[in-house]
Amino acid sequence: MKNIKLVYIGGGSKAWARVFMNDLTLTAELGGELALYDPDREAAELNRRIGQRLNAHPDARSHWDYVVYDDLERALSGADFVAISILPGTLDEMAVDVHAPEKYGVYQSVGDTVGPGGVLRAMRAVPLFEGFARAIEKCCPDAWVINLTNPMTILVRTLYDVFPKIKAFGCCHEVFNAEDFLCCVVHEQLGVPRPDRHELTIDASGINHFTWITRARWEDTDVLALLPPFMERFFETGYVEKHGVSPENWQYDPFTYGNRVKMDLFRRFGALAAAGDRHLVEFLPKAWYLDSPEAAEHWRYHLTSVDYRRRDRTKKIAESEAMANGTADVAPRRSPEELVRLMLAILGFGAVVSNANVVNVAQMPQLPNGTVVETNCVFDRDSVLPIAAQPLPGPVLSLVSANAQNIENLYAGIKARELDRIAESFLAQPLCMGLSCETGRQLFREMALGTAGYLEPWYDLSALN
Amino acid sequence: MKNIKLVYIGGGSKAWARVFMNDLTLTAELGGELALYDPDREAAELNRRIGQRLNAHPDARSHWDYVVYDDLERALSGADFVAISILPGTLDEMAVDVHAPEKYGVYQSVGDTVGPGGVLRAMRAVPLFEGFARAIEKCCPDAWVINLTNPMTILVRTLYDVFPKIKAFGCCHEVFNAEDFLCCVVHEQLGVPRPDRHELTIDASGINHFTWITRARWEDTDVLALLPPFMERFFETGYVEKHGVSPENWQYDPFTYGNRVKMDLFRRFGALAAAGDRHLVEFLPKAWYLDSPEAAEHWRYHLTSVDYRRRDRTKKIAESEAMANGTADVAPRRSPEELVRLMLAILGFGAVVSNANVVNVAQMPQLPNGTVVETNCVFDRDSVLPIAAQPLPGPVLSLVSANAQNIENLYAGIKARELDRIAESFLAQPLCMGLSCETGRQLFREMALGTAGYLEPWYDLSALN
Amino acid sequence: MKNIKLVYIGGGSKAWARVFMNDLTLTAELGGELALYDPDREAAELNRRIGQRLNAHPDARSHWDYVVYDDLERALSGADFVAISILPGTLDEMAVDVHAPEKYGVYQSVGDTVGPGGVLRAMRAVPLFEGFARAIEKCCPDAWVINLTNPMTILVRTLYDVFPKIKAFGCCHEVFNAEDFLCCVVHEQLGVPRPDRHELTIDASGINHFTWITRARWEDTDVLALLPPFMERFFETGYVEKHGVSPENWQYDPFTYGNRVKMDLFRRFGALAAAGDRHLVEFLPKAWYLDSPEAAEHWRYHLTSVDYRRRDRTKKIAESEAMANGTADVAPRRSPEELVRLMLAILGFGAVVSNANVVNVAQMPQLPNGTVVETNCVFDRDSVLPIAAQPLPGPVLSLVSANAQNIENLYAGIKARELDRIAESFLAQPLCMGLSCETGRQLFREMALGTAGYLEPWYDLSALN
Amino acid sequence: MKNIKLVYIGGGSKAWARVFMNDLTLTAELGGELALYDPDREAAELNRRIGQRLNAHPDARSHWDYVVYDDLERALSGADFVAISILPGTLDEMAVDVHAPEKYGVYQSVGDTVGPGGVLRAMRAVPLFEGFARAIEKCCPDAWVINLTNPMTILVRTLYDVFPKIKAFGCCHEVFNAEDFLCCVVHEQLGVPRPDRHELTIDASGINHFTWITRARWEDTDVLALLPPFMERFFETGYVEKHGVSPENWQYDPFTYGNRVKMDLFRRFGALAAAGDRHLVEFLPKAWYLDSPEAAEHWRYHLTSVDYRRRDRTKKIAESEAMANGTADVAPRRSPEELVRLMLAILGFGAVVSNANVVNVAQMPQLPNGTVVETNCVFDRDSVLPIAAQPLPGPVLSLVSANAQNIENLYAGIKARELDRIAESFLAQPLCMGLSCETGRQLFREMALGTAGYLEPWYDLSALN
Repeated sequence: MKNIKLVYIGGGSKAWARVFMNDLTLTAELGGELALYDPDREAAELNRRIGQRLNAHPDARSHWDYVVYDDLERALSGADFVAISILPGTLDEMAVDVHAPEKYGVYQSVGDTVGPGGVLRAMRAVPLFEGFARAIEKCCPDAWVINLTNPMTILVRTLYDVFPKIKAFGCCHEVFNAEDFLCCVVHEQLGVPRPDRHELTIDASGINHFTWITRARWEDTDVLALLPPFMERFFETGYVEKHGVSPENWQYDPFTYGNRVKMDLFRRFGALAAAGDRHLVEFLPKAWYLDSPEAAEHWRYHLTSVDYRRRDRTKKIAESEAMANGTADVAPRRSPEELVRLMLAILGFGAVVSNANVVNVAQMPQLPNGTVVETNCVFDRDSVLPIAAQPLPGPVLSLVSANAQNIENLYAGIKARELDRIAESFLAQPLCMGLSCETGRQLFREMALGTAGYLEPWYDLSALN
Repeated sequence: MKNIKLVYIGGGSKAWARVFMNDLTLTAELGGELALYDPDREAAELNRRIGQRLNAHPDARSHWDYVVYDDLERALSGADFVAISILPGTLDEMAVDVHAPEKYGVYQSVGDTVGPGGVLRAMRAVPLFEGFARAIEKCCPDAWVINLTNPMTILVRTLYDVFPKIKAFGCCHEVFNAEDFLCCVVHEQLGVPRPDRHELTIDASGINHFTWITRARWEDTDVLALLPPFMERFFETGYVEKHGVSPENWQYDPFTYGNRVKMDLFRRFGALAAAGDRHLVEFLPKAWYLDSPEAAEHWRYHLTSVDYRRRDRTKKIAESEAMANGTADVAPRRSPEELVRLMLAILGFGAVVSNANVVNVAQMPQLPNGTVVETNCVFDRDSVLPIAAQPLPGPVLSLVSANAQNIENLYAGIKARELDRIAESFLAQPLCMGLSCETGRQLFREMALGTAGYLEPWYDLSALN
Repeated sequence: MKNIKLVYIGGGSKAWARVFMNDLTLTAELGGELALYDPDREAAELNRRIGQRLNAHPDARSHWDYVVYDDLERALSGADFVAISILPGTLDEMAVDVHAPEKYGVYQSVGDTVGPGGVLRAMRAVPLFEGFARAIEKCCPDAWVINLTNPMTILVRTLYDVFPKIKAFGCCHEVFNAEDFLCCVVHEQLGVPRPDRHELTIDASGINHFTWITRARWEDTDVLALLPPFMERFFETGYVEKHGVSPENWQYDPFTYGNRVKMDLFRRFGALAAAGDRHLVEFLPKAWYLDSPEAAEHWRYHLTSVDYRRRDRTKKIAESEAMANGTADVAPRRSPEELVRLMLAILGFGAVVSNANVVNVAQMPQLPNGTVVETNCVFDRDSVLPIAAQPLPGPVLSLVSANAQNIENLYAGIKARELDRIAESFLAQPLCMGLSCETGRQLFREMALGTAGYLEPWYDLSALN
Repeated sequence: MKNIKLVYIGGGSKAWARVFMNDLTLTAELGGELALYDPDREAAELNRRIGQRLNAHPDARSHWDYVVYDDLERALSGADFVAISILPGTLDEMAVDVHAPEKYGVYQSVGDTVGPGGVLRAMRAVPLFEGFARAIEKCCPDAWVINLTNPMTILVRTLYDVFPKIKAFGCCHEVFNAEDFLCCVVHEQLGVPRPDRHELTIDASGINHFTWITRARWEDTDVLALLPPFMERFFETGYVEKHGVSPENWQYDPFTYGNRVKMDLFRRFGALAAAGDRHLVEFLPKAWYLDSPEAAEHWRYHLTSVDYRRRDRTKKIAESEAMANGTADVAPRRSPEELVRLMLAILGFGAVVSNANVVNVAQMPQLPNGTVVETNCVFDRDSVLPIAAQPLPGPVLSLVSANAQNIENLYAGIKARELDRIAESFLAQPLCMGLSCETGRQLFREMALGTAGYLEPWYDLSALN
């Protein structure tokens, strides 16, 4: 068993920390300290108590020292791994991110990555990550840092820009959904039982939530070549890849979708976008798939409302409290997440190939070096090494690089704390491109002022009034 | 005097040929044959007759053998220079290019470069240029080929793609207008007489009709630094740089504009877009400056109608006929065009620095090699050598590279004669980004069918019906 | 069990084919046809007979159809894999390669990769590989092609240049020796039993036989950091990493060496050259380590004579005959070679990370794209994907890129069959750099004429006489 | 007339300052202060007195305020131009640079650029240039800085590395000699009077003293195509291009040479090396052209001894004193140097194309960005803009990039003040490649200790004893 110190920044109020603790509890190879740091100390405390119940569970294969810290630097000191999973601001800010643009006809299905919501969220999150990077450089420069927070690309960019020698990567499961979808395609078209996604070999590249699969093999089969006949059967109805949900039931929950956007994009461009449709549409001109709530329905995906998120969060906190109190069961079971698997690889338990968000050192020669990109990487002893990706088709490259450049411009504006530059990258968002400059700036102003509490420590908002 | 053979392809029906013949007539250093080739033989004949009258003029400093050819290859044989200035299709096709999109709310101020009109025009022109390139490779591979036809970027791209060793460049005067504008700025802000544009030293780079000035010097003055106070005075009214037109009179003619777009872009991005505002707006999201005829008026530029072009053309042909017949004067005077000056430089009469459209060999390291870009070049004995350009600001680079990629994708589609791929680059035009895919494809279909006569030789349109 | 067709080109007369057949015999996952093609038909026949004895062996876990072909195209038809392992010319030619330069004071320890011998060998081998590539394109374009022949870099380059879509890689075990050496370092410095080389995680990059390890981990140990104290103990005596040979016994056989060159280079440059010392010295200026037979002895490695190779070959053929005849045992045992493991990965039996020689698509951004480089790759279902390598230290990069450029220049000369250009890259070999141009050309001439029988089909040697 | 402040650092003891003052005196467009700074104050004083005599000369077209400064920062304050022309160390150090290697069989024809002498000279000069760059950043960050000191490449590299926004270029006349040589070729082969070198249009690129002409035009003639017949006539005897010297008289003075090396390289590689043969041979393997004094004679160039330099210097100082005292005439006449012409272009008196040493921003895409390269540039108002160079032939690129990498490695070693790294780049010099590592290090040690007085302020030499 390896004895490690693992720091978890944030994570107090979402299910993710629970999932992660579950997976750790079932990992016999590891043990040690799990340092919990959250500005919301009670949330960290709650996780600690759940952790202790997991320790006590008979199925537990490892046991962790759950320690809550008030001080970030003390938490980080001596860390081997740092996982960062925060909510920048509260759901009140997210309500502004997602819903303020609606009165201008700009709808968002997620609102945490790109588009108006993504911009505002980045404005809140980047300064926090600047602080994390500085603290990591000071307290645990050799630790592996795993970002789980959105907007992924710009936050990993921040970590590397502030502390260039950081050993950081961004970890996201959206590609897995596309793999699951391809497993359904194999099942439907070859008449075999649905394979596990690990049986696929794919080449995927792009930027987080807008990654594209250019090649997919299952056994001797070229899976992308199965898509055209599959689409003849399922394009109209859509096809939900979620385990336990019937293919046509895209209304199952607010995160479910029928993959019609993905199929339409494949028909148009010959590569498969590798994220949930809810994410994809936000990277594309508004008029294509996200012009209105009706368009979302037509394309079989949801506009996830922040009200839903509030209810969901309340429910999850209640669940956590019940677990902490012992009124609910904590029975650990392994999640489909990869994080622990990747950590094991980094600790020397065997190489793993998986997707990650890291700085481009030429793994995507079509994008400038220095951009944060998502491609396959080899996770191995103390290393995350990017694998050279296949070229993207021309029109896909255009879409990806437009968004990558927007993010780079946004980052430059946030780094300089210049609202005008930030506003320009706001205007350049594909979802905003239908707005006149005047209207766009008005919306930006409203959103900034509507979330002023979380911006004022970093930006001079006086010019906006 | 150097004795050369200069071939002029097209040019029958526009004023350009006359301007060029004028300039040649005043160029004592050159003489020889001016070979005229135009599918519209009568147009070529008309030019020949004007040329002979220029020869006879007492101010003529050189005399040319004007020869009309029916056969392109015979015309090209032995050429030292080939100038290409054609109208791909007729004004009927251009009426479709420019006006068909209006019923979908898509307006165009020019319609010959990018946007829906630019795409359709490229579809007609690229196959013709493929033929020109093959004929040049066969008949005069060492000739210098000067393209004057729009859409410039894709046509120069075509020439190089078909015949990679071609000595070709694209020549455009739009940058000169921006230089004239900067001369007005010098005049207004320094209180000196308006300088000649050749007194400026600028660094400009981008793609044709969307080139950006990142640096401008006049004497010891940083001219871009004069713009903010200049804009305080003139942003509201606009400022026309045209010689002989008062600064506020943007309605002088359909090609005149008040430079408000240019000034607004400078305010936003800190670099000066170096083409007429009419061109610039077509490279930008429709909602920014070209949302409606009212927006055009607000920004002080015209939507040039094809009806106007028809009247203008009729007038110019009448002028030409009068000149050919001797009922009008042909008095040669030197134009502000640079073409003859560039030819002289290539022939060894002294190096000249001017802007040109050539293949990127790293003069713009921010864009991929192989892209056709417009930067300063040194024109010298048998050579046109690109000068390394300064980097563009991030948000400007985004705009330029999005358009450059669209053109590259469009070219790939046209080269393959694949309507679906062409339609995708049609949808990706900034002017079309407000259209749903369905509406966009419907418009594309209408435009293709509306210009079918000039497309059917090259494309299988049956799928569109 | 997967049923495949595997073609083995060459291999008639060396132990390699036997090793490979052994490994296949122990691979339960595979079976099918092993097509043997060798211009020396009897050699292929001998292998076939050995193969049949392996089939009959009680330990055999798979059984193969050993088929000898007279016709290359018939052999290739339907192939899944093609392994190429030929001797270009005979040992008579190799005697010229290795020993002709000695009278000019140029010694070679191997003579098959770079240096005068490598150049001449490339001249014989490249035209053969041009033929192989054309035949593969025609008969089995989807087959995976594995080159085992030296000079590796230029031959893989040839395959890709002739048939750009070829799925080829070059496979070499020299890196393994350096890994074994590092395992000895772990053993000596940490006092643990010598680990298996698969327990190391390394980053290696460069060109074949001149690859450099920039990073090596075993468990939590930075193995390169162990080298300085290790070298204090063992630099003087040298240290042989060969299993079963005592560390100081570098004279054990002509392929054994004491790793003093490797250690000295590490001391100088901070990266570990990852090939046998015999190979390394040929990439470096002659005066550094290979100035004379005495220098070789000083540095504890051998100049392998072709006489030795003759005797060794005679012995191996005798062994093969004995095996074929049943007078010797064929008891299969697994070799340390990786080839079968890589084939299994390509066939979908699980991803493997190993080094391979493929075209640079940016896995080594310090070298131009298109160069054939050796780095780690991920071998996975129908794919060999290069992993982005760490940068090489400046002085190492200089040495690697000088050799890579020499090979590129040599390839251009051979492709054009221009002896003058070939002679220039001969003169530019590090081992030849002490020769005047005149002497160098004289030596080149002697070597070309001394191996004329194998050059005349491809080159016009008349100018050399 | 433009009023400027021009600072001249160094130049006290060589003819260059006189030449420059002469040229300035004849330049009516300029006037102002010429600030003289030299650690050897008397030398600066001497120049001041010569300058005053030039001011008084009836042919003077401009008059300068010659001011001697003791303090560098005061000298630089307010400067428009800074010219740097120093001797790093004295001729005693240069005697070590040039002659110490001879006992190891390493001869040098110049010894100030690459090779052992170039390395030692760089060790003395780089730290001084670090100081200049810092002082310029502090006192006159907008001044144009012109380096005239060798070793050129590494010193320009230093300026940019210390102060990245510096407006600096290196200016060298060696390319002009190659142009003069080509003018002789025109004269001899076309039977026309020898043209002036400004009538040629060339494309040249590489690194200083090792630049290559890939294209040369005079009128309509491809001048490189004239070389083969020219060489048939003159290769054996050599051909001196120096005005006023007969073509075969290569022994005219120690700086004269017969261009046989240049012709031989052209025969081998098809491009014309554009520096004096004395320089070229130092970039190439010793055995090619510089194996011994006899080889120099065979190739018709001199090994310039430092004794000659001493005598020459004594003579030049005497001349200067005579001029200063009025016992010799100061009659100004225009030199063939370009510096004043380039300054005029920068000041806005008209664009000029000439060669310069600046940081690679992609003007030579075959070399890494950041390397200092010599190519044509456009000198224009406040700008020196590199022109995209044609690719070098493969074998030439190998030679150029090997030297460029050596310089980069050397710079890294000097910057870090690490003698071991410096010694490695010493060993990697083409002239040293015949030395064993041990001998090479011994020579390096001797040279460092022999010039210790000028190294000790910067390096810890104790390890060398």
